Amino acid sequence: MDLEKELQKRIVFFNKEFEEFLKNGEPESLYNAARHLPLAGGKRLRPCLTILSCEAVHGDVKKVTPLAIALELIHNFTLVHDDIMDHSKLRRNLPTVHVKYGEATAINAGDLLFAKAFESLHNLSCGFTVYKKIEHGFIEFIKEICEGQQLDMEFENKRIVTEEEYLTMIYKKTAVFFEYAAEAGGIIGGGTKKQTNALKEYGRTLGLGFQIHDDYLDMSSEKNILGKDIGNDIRNGKKTLIAVHALNHATGSDKKLLHKTFGDRNASDKNVQEAYNLFKKLKSIDYARHKAEEYRNKAKTALEVLPDTDAKQVLLDLADYSIKREK
Amino acid sequence: MDLEKELQKRIVFFNKEFEEFLKNGEPESLYNAARHLPLAGGKRLRPCLTILSCEAVHGDVKKVTPLAIALELIHNFTLVHDDIMDHSKLRRNLPTVHVKYGEATAINAGDLLFAKAFESLHNLSCGFTVYKKIEHGFIEFIKEICEGQQLDMEFENKRIVTEEEYLTMIYKKTAVFFEYAAEAGGIIGGGTKKQTNALKEYGRTLGLGFQIHDDYLDMSSEKNILGKDIGNDIRNGKKTLIAVHALNHATGSDKKLLHKTFGDRNASDKNVQEAYNLFKKLKSIDYARHKAEEYRNKAKTALEVLPDTDAKQVLLDLADYSIKREK
Repeated sequence: MDLEKELQKRIVFFNKEFEEFLKNGEPESLYNAARHLPLAGGKRLRPCLTILSCEAVHGDVKKVTPLAIALELIHNFTLVHDDIMDHSKLRRNLPTVHVKYGEATAINAGDLLFAKAFESLHNLSCGFTVYKKIEHGFIEFIKEICEGQQLDMEFENKRIVTEEEYLTMIYKKTAVFFEYAAEAGGIIGGGTKKQTNALKEYGRTLGLGFQIHDDYLDMSSEKNILGKDIGNDIRNGKKTLIAVHALNHATGSDKKLLHKTFGDRNASDKNVQEAYNLFKKLKSIDYARHKAEEYRNKAKTALEVLPDTDAKQVLLDLADYSIKREK
Repeated sequence: MDLEKELQKRIVFFNKEFEEFLKNGEPESLYNAARHLPLAGGKRLRPCLTILSCEAVHGDVKKVTPLAIALELIHNFTLVHDDIMDHSKLRRNLPTVHVKYGEATAINAGDLLFAKAFESLHNLSCGFTVYKKIEHGFIEFIKEICEGQQLDMEFENKRIVTEEEYLTMIYKKTAVFFEYAAEAGGIIGGGTKKQTNALKEYGRTLGLGFQIHDDYLDMSSEKNILGKDIGNDIRNGKKTLIAVHALNHATGSDKKLLHKTFGDRNASDKNVQEAYNLFKKLKSIDYARHKAEEYRNKAKTALEVLPDTDAKQVLLDLADYSIKREK
């Protein structure tokens, strides 16, 4: 099975509906800013996940489309606001919304995308009980994403973060989104409780593995050590699983060096290199890779209760891809 | 009838439910920032409006409470984000959220309040048809508020704004909120179509009069001419109805002077005084007062179809107050 081709099929279908939904409005300056990021592409992972989950329980894909659109809008709204919070200049190889349209318009455009996400959710055609259930989960996961973003910002100024705290943070910031997308797709598809629970567990573990791999990616390429990624992550004190593991396991002079360099915005290249060497010595990079693999395995195991379908196979392949991808 | 006492009765009832709904959460830094503004008081005009509208059609006030909470949360979320956009330092005599907690946390706290507004709306206990209708209106008015905020920002850099454009802007920024609060309160209260349409018209015209009076207030007190309010509004080129009227009616040298001073951040006190004198000469201040009175009259007339109740009397008095208040 060609994973990329399978995903592309769903993306083409999704993009058509998505672009139709995101048609222009007045004032143009606001709608242009709001459309900038969502129409600039992106992996469309969340829409694919909810569509595939619906398919995996033999559901009608058309029924899940408003949810897929709502999810992608929430994803984009959080990116627009997060980029302001993190002072990011580029996203999807384009200037971020606040760089291109100014910060005030970017805040407002994010809010509009937020409202439009609920507008799309509102278009779901399902009975009252299912609708209220889907909406309840939708609201809850958005609140958790706000909490996760806050934890992520707080962790940068926190000396020690435990692995448990790190996992809570990435669960809220990333995995809860995947968890909801998969579960809700299954619910709208008419899956049984056993099936939707399986999809929920698949989404959660896929999300955790995906995020840990993200951290790992930045750290695994030697050529990046003193480049933007690793150097920045170390100097900014970014609490990746690798960093969390190293900070919690270093002892003696290693611990001293790590604490000195990590989060020091003026750390020398030499110190950054030494800190990175410690990550390797403490096997923190291997640890993160193994953790990501563990979650990938859990994700695949969760799907065992589902009937064999093309969609199930795509989800299985997606789990493998999530911890193998190189970008 | 003592308007303040009547409003206070509803506010006390509302605040109890509101504070209960806004209980703390984790991470505390996020929830403290999100609770800062809503728990700092405020006029609670929107909750009162929706509660009174429900009462005015003999509806059950308890049923409308989740909507009242949702409206106040949306109001507060827009204030938190608007204060960032407008670089405002004070609100309700307290530092604004971004001044107290930092801009990143303030953006995130606004987003959380937005999500929590939908959480409260979700708690409405009404049938599917009513729920979807209420939710649809809720989403639409929030989108219009985003559009109104954008127009307001755009107008500062626009040389000429017509009265029609000005009215569209304040309709979207303010009146649409009042319109929805009144109509939705009537719908949840079980009002007839005729009654809920009347409440909708009441809310719309109340909101327009309210906003025009707001502009008028700042401009009507001679002692403010060179103080913060009038001087700032003139130097910032703020498109109030007074300014719009004057800019559209001035001719010859008056027009030249007005265009020169209005929106000139470095305008001298003398020029500001001259511009203000022109507002008076062109009767722009009187014009705005009359417009506000016109909307007040429309609001009161709209209520004629409603049965006579205490709530109706409060709404009538509120219309008078809305264009008489001095703060």
